[in-house]
Formats: sequence, structure tokens, C-alpha cells
Amino acid sequence: METIKTLLGHKTIRKYKNDPIDEKVLDEILNAGFRASTTGNMQVYSVIVSKDKEKRKELCKLHFGQNMVEEAPVLLTFCADFNRFNKWCKQRDADPGYDNFLSFFTAAIDALLVAQNVAVAAEAHGLGICYLGTTTYQADKLIEFFELPEGVVPVTTLVVGYPGEDPEQVDRLPAGGVIHQEKYTDYTPDDIDRIYREKESLPLTARLLEENQLENLAQIFTFKRYTKKDNLHFSRVLLDVLQDQGFMNQEDD
Amino acid sequence: METIKTLLGHKTIRKYKNDPIDEKVLDEILNAGFRASTTGNMQVYSVIVSKDKEKRKELCKLHFGQNMVEEAPVLLTFCADFNRFNKWCKQRDADPGYDNFLSFFTAAIDALLVAQNVAVAAEAHGLGICYLGTTTYQADKLIEFFELPEGVVPVTTLVVGYPGEDPEQVDRLPAGGVIHQEKYTDYTPDDIDRIYREKESLPLTARLLEENQLENLAQIFTFKRYTKKDNLHFSRVLLDVLQDQGFMNQEDD
Repeated sequence: METIKTLLGHKTIRKYKNDPIDEKVLDEILNAGFRASTTGNMQVYSVIVSKDKEKRKELCKLHFGQNMVEEAPVLLTFCADFNRFNKWCKQRDADPGYDNFLSFFTAAIDALLVAQNVAVAAEAHGLGICYLGTTTYQADKLIEFFELPEGVVPVTTLVVGYPGEDPEQVDRLPAGGVIHQEKYTDYTPDDIDRIYREKESLPLTARLLEENQLENLAQIFTFKRYTKKDNLHFSRVLLDVLQDQGFMNQEDD
Repeated sequence: METIKTLLGHKTIRKYKNDPIDEKVLDEILNAGFRASTTGNMQVYSVIVSKDKEKRKELCKLHFGQNMVEEAPVLLTFCADFNRFNKWCKQRDADPGYDNFLSFFTAAIDALLVAQNVAVAAEAHGLGICYLGTTTYQADKLIEFFELPEGVVPVTTLVVGYPGEDPEQVDRLPAGGVIHQEKYTDYTPDDIDRIYREKESLPLTARLLEENQLENLAQIFTFKRYTKKDNLHFSRVLLDVLQDQGFMNQEDD
């Protein structure tokens, strides 16, 4: 089954050819995105398409200098967007009550389901994709860059282009380690050892430990990749962004 | 292209046959889910499978009595989950700094990308799906029901089963209304009228206005479906849940 094969064959691509993407192909993958489920059919999201070379160069800096952002022909920034819906409500004598955290999260879900449909559609077309986690870290700067009005917050970005590499598919935890039947069964120390065993014994892990001079893979995450200090800093950025973009009202007025 | 056809053909299903889903099919669609991109390959999510009839009856009540929750053979609850990862870090002498809002949002993105892959894989197998927005409204009650420990928050639910109906595909806004080129172009009153024109003139809209005795579609959203009062209430529930589940630390200790 082609669809299942596409899903099971996913690889993140970090090197791209600079071949452009045909307009018809880009339209088709975006339209496939917009068929994703959306809360109450509100479609509270927007997608910003970046193709301009100079703009991608600037975006590359904002995304911590990841080369592929400049290299790939298209960057898609997916935003939670209640601005359009709010404007519509106001224009129709309907008072929108969407300036709160639930509404932000609803819109973020909408945007993320679209993004994943776009990722799948792109791969079905032989394109490669990479998600940029830097989107939320740099939400304040991206808001400025894209001139996002109140009610709009970027939640994720897809780099899209023709693959310039064919990497090995990366590992995943055993399915049983992330599935729970009927209720959540908390993990014993033995469960944890078992679930992470394969990942810990990969050649890739051995190489990372060598490079980073650390004892084990978990320490690479906590000391290097996703540190407490950075997480706290970017949490404040993101919470401030939600406040500034009008999503933290907590009181009836 | 089968994949694009599957994506473009999506319809939300709200009536189900009670035919069970073959174990092999369920495994395949979940495994297709787990191939979705995940931040730093951390896989900070869990999926809870509900098949037990009594449990689904109780879940139906928690999801505001939507019949399909009891009717369909499988319910999948997707959770942002840093509990497993935190346990692994602690067991490896690595101090996890994932008790903050950024980490929650990262885990929520992970869980939502998996959910959408599962939705697509299910539809490729001829199954129907429906997302339940009630998951975040009732997050506190679902945490109790599934016995979710600290670090785990339910973010969405998929009802999955063989369709017992074949509804018309619902409308979407014109693609140009949700796509922006290079930067966000804010909407003029004319843009808003144009973007919402088709939706407002649908027979479905006419029927809803008749049933609800309201002037226009926007008012159905603000007065009936997603009211300010409800949104504020459920925002507080969700923010409290994030606090209680250990995702709102804002200070280095």
C-alpha cells in the first residue's frame, strides 16, 4: 500500500538540491494539507511560503544557521492563526472569545495536523522534508520577520526540497515502549533499560559519546542538546509570545 | 498517486460499524505513526489504546457523550509524555530539565504529528477517523481515568473504526485565504468577505441558521459552539493541568 509505504519510509533530509519545486506540486501538497481535520472546520491556521533567496538567507540565521534553510527552495512556516477568524466574527457582529490559552492550543493542533499532511504529501512526491524545532524558540523573532499580527503564532516550520542525500533511516523505540493498553502503565527501571537498550547500543550513539566525551546518551540530551537553562529561557520566550499575541486572557470582561 | 488521493479524500466519520480492527492492521497504523518526525528523536509521546467496551462507555461520558466514542471499536489517546524520557535520564545520572512549558509544547508537537500519521494510515486501510477536541477540555478527568503520572498530558484523541456512514466531504476555505507569500498579508474587510463567501452560502449554513435562529454563521461559533465563557473555563483547566503535571517550572533551581 503506497500510503503506508510512504509513512513507514520517512527520513528527515538535511541536505537539499537547489532544484525548484513546480508550482503545481507545491499547490497539491498544500491542498492535501488543508484537508486535514480542523476543529469545528474553523481552519485556524495560516501557512507562510518562503521562496525568495534573500529571505531564506535571513531565515537561515533566525533558525540558528541550519544550512538547509538557505539551501532548500521552499520553507513553510505553519502558524496558529485566530486573526482571520476573529476579523470575520467582528465583521459579522459576533464577539470572538478566542484570546485565551485553549484557543491558542486548538489553533496549534490545527496547524500541526496540516503540517504533517503536507510532510506526507511532499514525501509522496519524492520531496524531502525537515521540521525545524527552532520555530518555537525564535517565535518572537519570526513574528517580527513575517509581520504576524495579534492572534498569530508560528508553531512549526517545514524545509521542503529535492533530497541531496540519502541517509539511513534512524531508530525508533520498540512500539511496546510507547503504547499503553486501556490505562497508563508506568515504567519500572527494568522497562526503561529494555526500551532504551537498542538505542543505547547503536554505532551512532557510540560515535556521539566519543565526540562529546560523555558517559551515556541521556547525558548528551541533558548536557548538550536540550539543556534545562535553554528550555527555561525558551519557555519564557514562548509564554511571552502567547501573552503578546493575545492568547493569555484569563478573565471574562 | 494513492497517498495524495488518501489525503485529499479525508472525511471525518461520526458513525461506526462495531466490526473490530484486526490486530495486525492496528499495529501497522500505529507503527506508521511512530515514523513521524520527532524532536531530536526523543519520541516524547505515548498512545493509550482503549478497546474494552466498559472503558469506552466511561470514556464516552468523559467526551461529552459523543456516541461514536462508545460505538467505534478503538479509541487512541495521544499524550505528550516526558515521564519515560525523564525516568531514563535519571536512571543514567543525567538531570532532566524538561519540567517547563517549552518541553510540554515540544512533546505536544511530537504527539500530534504521530496522531496525524495514524489518521492517514487508518484511512489508507479503509478505516474512518474522528478527532476529539474534548481531549484538552477534559484533560484533568482523562489524567485520572488513564492514571497518567507527572510529565504526561493528553493532547488529542482519535476515534477509529470501519465507517457506518458515507458523508459528503465538507468545505474548506479557498487555499489563497490561508496561504501567505514571504510575509503575512493582513486581511482587509473585502478579503474576509471573499474568503468566507462560499462557506456562508452553503446549504449546511442555511440549515444551521434556521436551527439556531441566528443571523449568520460567525454567531453560531461565538454564541453556541465555542463561547468565550467555555474557552476561558477550559483554558484554566488546561493551564492547571500543565502546572499539576509538572510543566510550568519557570525558574532555575
